Amino acid sequence: MATSEASVTRIMVAVNESTIKGYPHASISSKGAFEWTLQKIVMSITSGFKLLFLHVQVPDEDGFDDMDSIYASPEDFKSLKSRDRARGLRLLEFFVTRCHEIGVACEAWIKKGDPKEVICHEVKRIQPDLLVLGSRGLGPFQRVFVGTVSEFCVKHAECPVVTIKRRLDETPQDPVDD
Amino acid sequence: MATSEASVTRIMVAVNESTIKGYPHASISSKGAFEWTLQKIVMSITSGFKLLFLHVQVPDEDGFDDMDSIYASPEDFKSLKSRDRARGLRLLEFFVTRCHEIGVACEAWIKKGDPKEVICHEVKRIQPDLLVLGSRGLGPFQRVFVGTVSEFCVKHAECPVVTIKRRLDETPQDPVDD
Repeated sequence: MATSEASVTRIMVAVNESTIKGYPHASISSKGAFEWTLQKIVMSITSGFKLLFLHVQVPDEDGFDDMDSIYASPEDFKSLKSRDRARGLRLLEFFVTRCHEIGVACEAWIKKGDPKEVICHEVKRIQPDLLVLGSRGLGPFQRVFVGTVSEFCVKHAECPVVTIKRRLDETPQDPVDD
Repeated sequence: MATSEASVTRIMVAVNESTIKGYPHASISSKGAFEWTLQKIVMSITSGFKLLFLHVQVPDEDGFDDMDSIYASPEDFKSLKSRDRARGLRLLEFFVTRCHEIGVACEAWIKKGDPKEVICHEVKRIQPDLLVLGSRGLGPFQRVFVGTVSEFCVKHAECPVVTIKRRLDETPQDPVDD
């Protein structure tokens, strides 16, 4: 089925790194949201959809990762920035490679900032048909402390939003991890 | 494309009557949610999806519609019940006819009760892949007074939920109407 750009459904998937391992793996809920989109929406109609992967890097979070590093010159910060960039790129590579294998058109990019604000801003700019978000599926008590990006985006993003809750059997030891 | 039942994506669409006209029209937001599902998700892949239309009738609401009626015998209530039933059936006929025209498999049924509770209960029973809900897209001030079914279902339904906000140019004079 040949599909013109106008009739292609553009689905934005916001993805982030796992908090569990050091290597920039995709988080469990990001992978869940991506797999759900492929299996339930895209199915075998690869030409009917375009996936837009947005990864938002949190500047402060990166600082924490480098608590033991010593910054003595502007060069040290430059190498830090390029390391962040490399991690983000490897994360996006996971999703883009998968799409390439099955023949789904995609684009991926990185932004810095507060994920919930940046995602809503990018939705406004890109105007996708649907935003898919993974969610850890935390209870109300846990949510108070960690906040959830998905709850904010469901309320504020200017496009339909679907939240894919993490499967119970994939919950890590600490459910706040992902 | 022939698709076995197992690989079909089952999308539940909760639909309700318009509050504006006397005839059981579909509400603006129900129609919007349905059209969005057809245009953005189902597209030309009619064999890959099955739509499940759930209409929840609110018992009290029907009482209001019949303020001027006089109930003198059990028979009067029986005719009231069958009239409710007829209204609900005509509402569902709109969606089922449309699906039939374009060749999308569907099922439709009516339940009585509190829409948000019944929708979540039916999701648990039917286990659809996705629940699509229309929403009036009211502001926070209006929401306090009218409540929203979609907000409740996003939190409590045991499947991914996507809320389709009513288009601004379709907002009736009183935005609480639909």
